[in-house]
Amino acid sequence: MNCVLTVQELSEKINGKIIGKSDIKISGVSDLVNAKNSDVSFILSPKYLESAISSAAPVIISDSLEHIQGKTVIKVQNVKIAYIKAINIFYPPESIRGYISKNSSIALTAKLGIDVFIDDFVVVKDNTEIGDGSYIGVGSFIGKSCVIGKNVRIFSRVSIYDRTIIGDNTIIHSGAVIGSDGFGFVENNGEIIKIPQIGNVIIGRNVEIGANTTIDRASFGSTFIDDDVKIDNLVQIAHNVRIGKGTIIAAQTGIAGSTQIGKYCLIAGQVGFVDHITIGDFVKIGAQAGVAKDLPDRAEVTGSPARPIKELRKAEAYMMKLEELFKKVKEIYNKLNK
Amino acid sequence: MNCVLTVQELSEKINGKIIGKSDIKISGVSDLVNAKNSDVSFILSPKYLESAISSAAPVIISDSLEHIQGKTVIKVQNVKIAYIKAINIFYPPESIRGYISKNSSIALTAKLGIDVFIDDFVVVKDNTEIGDGSYIGVGSFIGKSCVIGKNVRIFSRVSIYDRTIIGDNTIIHSGAVIGSDGFGFVENNGEIIKIPQIGNVIIGRNVEIGANTTIDRASFGSTFIDDDVKIDNLVQIAHNVRIGKGTIIAAQTGIAGSTQIGKYCLIAGQVGFVDHITIGDFVKIGAQAGVAKDLPDRAEVTGSPARPIKELRKAEAYMMKLEELFKKVKEIYNKLNK
Amino acid sequence: MNCVLTVQELSEKINGKIIGKSDIKISGVSDLVNAKNSDVSFILSPKYLESAISSAAPVIISDSLEHIQGKTVIKVQNVKIAYIKAINIFYPPESIRGYISKNSSIALTAKLGIDVFIDDFVVVKDNTEIGDGSYIGVGSFIGKSCVIGKNVRIFSRVSIYDRTIIGDNTIIHSGAVIGSDGFGFVENNGEIIKIPQIGNVIIGRNVEIGANTTIDRASFGSTFIDDDVKIDNLVQIAHNVRIGKGTIIAAQTGIAGSTQIGKYCLIAGQVGFVDHITIGDFVKIGAQAGVAKDLPDRAEVTGSPARPIKELRKAEAYMMKLEELFKKVKEIYNKLNK
Repeated sequence: MNCVLTVQELSEKINGKIIGKSDIKISGVSDLVNAKNSDVSFILSPKYLESAISSAAPVIISDSLEHIQGKTVIKVQNVKIAYIKAINIFYPPESIRGYISKNSSIALTAKLGIDVFIDDFVVVKDNTEIGDGSYIGVGSFIGKSCVIGKNVRIFSRVSIYDRTIIGDNTIIHSGAVIGSDGFGFVENNGEIIKIPQIGNVIIGRNVEIGANTTIDRASFGSTFIDDDVKIDNLVQIAHNVRIGKGTIIAAQTGIAGSTQIGKYCLIAGQVGFVDHITIGDFVKIGAQAGVAKDLPDRAEVTGSPARPIKELRKAEAYMMKLEELFKKVKEIYNKLNK
Repeated sequence: MNCVLTVQELSEKINGKIIGKSDIKISGVSDLVNAKNSDVSFILSPKYLESAISSAAPVIISDSLEHIQGKTVIKVQNVKIAYIKAINIFYPPESIRGYISKNSSIALTAKLGIDVFIDDFVVVKDNTEIGDGSYIGVGSFIGKSCVIGKNVRIFSRVSIYDRTIIGDNTIIHSGAVIGSDGFGFVENNGEIIKIPQIGNVIIGRNVEIGANTTIDRASFGSTFIDDDVKIDNLVQIAHNVRIGKGTIIAAQTGIAGSTQIGKYCLIAGQVGFVDHITIGDFVKIGAQAGVAKDLPDRAEVTGSPARPIKELRKAEAYMMKLEELFKKVKEIYNKLNK
Repeated sequence: MNCVLTVQELSEKINGKIIGKSDIKISGVSDLVNAKNSDVSFILSPKYLESAISSAAPVIISDSLEHIQGKTVIKVQNVKIAYIKAINIFYPPESIRGYISKNSSIALTAKLGIDVFIDDFVVVKDNTEIGDGSYIGVGSFIGKSCVIGKNVRIFSRVSIYDRTIIGDNTIIHSGAVIGSDGFGFVENNGEIIKIPQIGNVIIGRNVEIGANTTIDRASFGSTFIDDDVKIDNLVQIAHNVRIGKGTIIAAQTGIAGSTQIGKYCLIAGQVGFVDHITIGDFVKIGAQAGVAKDLPDRAEVTGSPARPIKELRKAEAYMMKLEELFKKVKEIYNKLNK
């Protein structure tokens, strides 16, 4: 059951200023499309003003916007932060209580912190430590000698191979695989020999890893994901990759072995990086780009092979006019040869 | 043990007309390449006539084709429908009987219909309903307050997060993740804050979802997959995406947040869609296309960025002749400057 | 606890020749970046000579290289083979001992060889055979009538559908799905009908299959992966695909139905193959290529659509100079029209 607040009470909690009716009762948060009368809604850009007018729900808007005629609004400095606060009020994350399912299999040498929650059919192997308040979902497997921090949430059916280290507050979604063998082989007289992968994976704090994403462990040393990195679903991160703090990686992107990515990069979906390259900080990479070379700080590229966005868009526009150009050249050529 | 039918008996069941021997005994179905003497085979196009002649097995062919000299054939109106019927005769899908494994963990408040089959190491959480005749494979996890329809088949190791709704007769393959958090973050003074994802996923009837495919739940409202949608393996569907009835999506395609796809579209493999665009009905999209803009009904595009197929193929052909063009222009230029 | 060897003892085991101190104690192997004093390191190319000089650890180098001044080196004929040997000395793979977890569910009709290891929450269905020395990781599911060879390693949470055949020494990583339904449908009067997929998957010996990779079973006959094939993470292999001996496939590549790939091909990441094409032996395909046509033996292609590498690179270079060309043609045109 959600809690119920008046607009007045909500406004106080999100540091807002009400214009309109302060006694409307609110029990949820929604976007404009889905908002019911009992929801508070929000607009992130003036272009949604019109939809806001037609919606019945009170709306969180920016200080910098005009009032909306005839509507109850809560004005705040930062709408995004305010509506996230509102969500956390009406839909508080479930608090984790200590619980170990009898249907789980925990090694005697594993060390579990206070208030760890372990759901059914979980396996935790020898010498692994799990920090206070962490949650391990149904059917997840944590190998030997791992160190899992505090308040980590590992959802259902995640596999974590031996010796993985995971920092506090990190979230790992269902089906992710952390620490599988790096993909390394040597050809010797026609025989293909596997290079044993003896490193591990280190994941920082406040990281999020999407569903069915795979992160291979290093051949030597560590594959390293720094604090605040956010990785979407079905991403592939190869052995010995390093990803800098705060970088965001959208779905289905793949990063080949030993490539290093800087801090606070924005990487769109389905991007590919070859191995052994170095990408700077604050780099932006467009969807489906193919990155085959080092990139300096603040580079903005797209396309395959990746090029500066403006250059590529111009070249593509010219490419679509090639027929015209070929004809023109033919015309000139014929004229000259007459 | 497969059943055995004479060609006569089979022909009656698939509304066919025999030319040749009606007493041959048939116990299976196969394509021409793999057919044994006891299999009935089929041809979907006249170009396979020759292979059919060399194969020993009786062949299902179209009414509209000539008889094949010296072979036993069953003529039918629609070969595809007839051979699917034949497969279902010789390899009937296993009937689901009611069974709840003692090795599963079913919440007391979960409601299971008649003849539900629940295999080992399955977890079903509180207040979830599973309809009559549905099958839940080994190691699958179904969260709280889900509604699973009738005759649904959920294969092994599927994760379904809380509040997911799944329609009748839908099939979900192993490793799929339904309802994981949408990928949404807000940057505030250098801090990256997660936007809580409070929506759900609604999947219609007769849908098929491939192995290791991921479908994120909505931030607000629902990610929505309509009836008869068929989704292949390793596809990513982001939060608040809507996919219209009967659309088919091949492997490794990714659809970013809030994008809407119409009815009866054909989307090839490894296609990417940016967020917040609208694709019409009956649209066809080529493999590896990058769709960054709205598309009208019946559009046919390919390439990245996606363009009408004919235009793109022409531009690509010109592109491969650029060397020639550059040389010609140089020649003209030199001539003129003399 | 790792074993400890002197440089002398190690050198003998890897057929090396020492220059420098033969009594240094070694207890591990590492690359130059991560090497501690007690590790033996190695260099694969003269360009790393400088890093080797600054590292404290003894180094395995090629016979063909100069000695490194002031360092202890072990010279060998083949550095890669030598360091793999060294890894296997210091980090021997865990030997599999016979063990069947009480938390697993093994059908009475399943046949397990000698020294099979079955971890917690594994399910093995009726009539499946598992060969001597094979290992089945936590939460894996093996369907009916499968044949798993000897010394196979199936890591955690793998799904293997009915009737799959897997050869000796093959490795399958976590989350892989082998034998899911091929993606085949028929449209009939607006209804989309599933084509039942009654074939299976056959995997050879010494194959490696990456985490969360999916391999669909054949509609008829078998999807076939030959000996020594190495497949990375998140790869999609559709029904009736055939992959030849020793071919290597990097992450996130997808191969559509019935396509045949030859022997000893090298296929980079995120490549897509359309259905029903034939690729020769020893073919090399660049990252993100889109292969839509047959390719002969030893072809080397890249790009989407895939073209011979040199041709494509040349065309791309011209493409980026189109602005210049358009201007020049305009200039000529204007001159002529004066």
